[in-house]
Amino acid sequence: MIPESAKELVDELREQVAALHAELVRYGLVVWTAGNVSARVPGHDLFLIKPSGVSYDDLTPDAIVACDLDGELVDGELAPSSDTAAHAYVYRNMPEVGGVVHTHSTYACAWSARAEPIPCALTAMADEFGGPIPLGPFARIGDDSIGRGIVETLSGHRSRAVIMQNHGVFSIGPDAKAAVKAAVMCEDVARSTHIARQLGPLTPIPQDDIDALFDRYQNVYGQTGAK
Amino acid sequence: MIPESAKELVDELREQVAALHAELVRYGLVVWTAGNVSARVPGHDLFLIKPSGVSYDDLTPDAIVACDLDGELVDGELAPSSDTAAHAYVYRNMPEVGGVVHTHSTYACAWSARAEPIPCALTAMADEFGGPIPLGPFARIGDDSIGRGIVETLSGHRSRAVIMQNHGVFSIGPDAKAAVKAAVMCEDVARSTHIARQLGPLTPIPQDDIDALFDRYQNVYGQTGAK
Amino acid sequence: MIPESAKELVDELREQVAALHAELVRYGLVVWTAGNVSARVPGHDLFLIKPSGVSYDDLTPDAIVACDLDGELVDGELAPSSDTAAHAYVYRNMPEVGGVVHTHSTYACAWSARAEPIPCALTAMADEFGGPIPLGPFARIGDDSIGRGIVETLSGHRSRAVIMQNHGVFSIGPDAKAAVKAAVMCEDVARSTHIARQLGPLTPIPQDDIDALFDRYQNVYGQTGAK
Amino acid sequence: MIPESAKELVDELREQVAALHAELVRYGLVVWTAGNVSARVPGHDLFLIKPSGVSYDDLTPDAIVACDLDGELVDGELAPSSDTAAHAYVYRNMPEVGGVVHTHSTYACAWSARAEPIPCALTAMADEFGGPIPLGPFARIGDDSIGRGIVETLSGHRSRAVIMQNHGVFSIGPDAKAAVKAAVMCEDVARSTHIARQLGPLTPIPQDDIDALFDRYQNVYGQTGAK
Repeated sequence: MIPESAKELVDELREQVAALHAELVRYGLVVWTAGNVSARVPGHDLFLIKPSGVSYDDLTPDAIVACDLDGELVDGELAPSSDTAAHAYVYRNMPEVGGVVHTHSTYACAWSARAEPIPCALTAMADEFGGPIPLGPFARIGDDSIGRGIVETLSGHRSRAVIMQNHGVFSIGPDAKAAVKAAVMCEDVARSTHIARQLGPLTPIPQDDIDALFDRYQNVYGQTGAK
Repeated sequence: MIPESAKELVDELREQVAALHAELVRYGLVVWTAGNVSARVPGHDLFLIKPSGVSYDDLTPDAIVACDLDGELVDGELAPSSDTAAHAYVYRNMPEVGGVVHTHSTYACAWSARAEPIPCALTAMADEFGGPIPLGPFARIGDDSIGRGIVETLSGHRSRAVIMQNHGVFSIGPDAKAAVKAAVMCEDVARSTHIARQLGPLTPIPQDDIDALFDRYQNVYGQTGAK
Repeated sequence: MIPESAKELVDELREQVAALHAELVRYGLVVWTAGNVSARVPGHDLFLIKPSGVSYDDLTPDAIVACDLDGELVDGELAPSSDTAAHAYVYRNMPEVGGVVHTHSTYACAWSARAEPIPCALTAMADEFGGPIPLGPFARIGDDSIGRGIVETLSGHRSRAVIMQNHGVFSIGPDAKAAVKAAVMCEDVARSTHIARQLGPLTPIPQDDIDALFDRYQNVYGQTGAK
Repeated sequence: MIPESAKELVDELREQVAALHAELVRYGLVVWTAGNVSARVPGHDLFLIKPSGVSYDDLTPDAIVACDLDGELVDGELAPSSDTAAHAYVYRNMPEVGGVVHTHSTYACAWSARAEPIPCALTAMADEFGGPIPLGPFARIGDDSIGRGIVETLSGHRSRAVIMQNHGVFSIGPDAKAAVKAAVMCEDVARSTHIARQLGPLTPIPQDDIDALFDRYQNVYGQTGAK
């Protein structure tokens, strides 16, 4: 049961989570039903997530389900995503995380199928990820292995995205929208960097430039602090 | 003639088959008129299929034609797909199959033009196909060669998709929607795996992990058996 | 001036030519204004073609211009496509041609920038083109060189498409729709064949199979001669 | 403050700049909020530009901000693009420029991540760019380095686009629409040329042909001077 005090917030977040799935579709990060967005309900031990195996066309706010931080269904008609345990593990262990996204986006998957992190040769990647996007371990679905792999890889790391070996992307953020942005940017730089390397070695960006770009982007970009 | 007892079912399936062709378009698996979906009419020796050479824009339910299991036209104004004999052969020889899809999707065709099966280096592929997607023989259109190649390759195989050498994809399923899903996922993993291998060797997934992933996905994923 | 006897036909063809440009956009064969469709006016020394430098969004039937077979503007407010001379040359020298299409579609351009014909390793290519898609000469715009290159390459050739070196695709057909289909299929097989060859040599299709596929497709496919 | 005499013109340009951002989306040159168009206000020391971090969906004419040629906000509710200093530098130093576009389009970024200019092996590239698209220096955001790199590379150069090392594309034009066209064509030829080179060396276009193509396209193409 959703506590009375959370109901209004949950309704708002259901709208937001449903709408954010459409961004995964728009940016070509998912096919069929293979990708999901979740959002923590701030101030409650709850998060909202996509139901399992449901088409993005059918993903109305009502279809979004609520789970507790053990990944157990708390509210909703449908079974939660088969990736729910991984999302739950992240929320339990990374209190700063408000949103989690999982995709099998093409170019990120390609790096993961060779077990290679994505090197940083583009300023957009330095901005958003502060360096390479790290590789997480191979982990079988069904217990906490995937969640643990995500948390161990991303804790204390600048990058908000991890490519899990032979699997796909998990991204995080202070809220679900930021996690979706990280998933979108991850695929974008995975693609550009892959294509760059097809015809020869990458020209690296010096580390102090990467550091300066990351620092600036985290603090200056966008409308936060707008004059 | 459609038997009276099948008419209602046939009308429903015509709607479904017409709508599923739009999924082939949405996922970029077909250009012009080159790809088709068919659905068995359960309990009758009939299946429904795309007419030949008709644009996907013009594919109303009324345009979908009905054939018997020899591939002969039973109901409809238009000539059936030139791939009808292959679909019919599958329905005659694989009673568990309720839907068949054929596409020339780009990356699957690329593997087929080198006569290579698609190796399994992604968990999504282990989930859906239980291992590599097999290569079927080169077969000329015009007799039962294509149908026989599909049936011989897929009978007893975990994979619901086969890439026919120098040709394209045939996928099957318990119903037409499942066959369309297999066609969509086939192209998705064909693409990611191709791109992965462009920059170096794939990191394989151990066989017992593939087995466990396939078993779980067939039994747990989606809303079947939802709590 | 359009002769009185041709006016109704020209009006119909203007609608068709405008609509066919939208197919170039739909299949991603053109960007900005770089690609054009023309249609012969049967029984008259006239053809209809895109005006130069006009956006596909603004391509109403009224915007389509009429030229004589020397490429001179006969009817229309706008200057004809800068490729008009090449279209005109084809109509003057290939009386069986009723439609011509020109694009800079990506994968076909890639083969042309290496001056390589596109080899035939897919049955869809054998069906439509009867073998490899030939390479035409490098030719500078401004005189009859491009038209002559197209005609010399395609006369007596099975293929309805030619890739002009360092330039792009010209395709022909008995009418404009068939020429658009050839342009669409040319890019589709250029792409699949390119991707196939990225990871190793192509598996060739035996010549007698190519011959049989081409013969069958020209005579059996589609609704012509439908039972 | 916008001077009274510029208000009508600014309103028109706001509409145009907002609409041109939609072209960046249509041609797949941008993801999320990463790309921007600006337009000089002719006769005034002003230009209009995208606000920072705002989604293309939300980019109404009202959201477009006005800056002076030092890049300082003159009119608008939102903070200007983080690339405003680069745009401003171009307007200050290239009086013939009326529009500037910045993108991280995929294939252009790939060339830039290897620090390679894009070679000219396609007539469409000779037409639009008059030869190779040059590489600009690596430059850190935050001062005039990027603007200086653009101006030093493009001054006196035929090309209206530069790929900045490890970063992306800046394109210019007599107005914003021409700069957008250059950004679109830059990605198109970056892609075709990349794909061409994947399978072997490019066949070069002789310099005198490049010169003739460029000269003709600048003077003859389109409706300017239409008969």
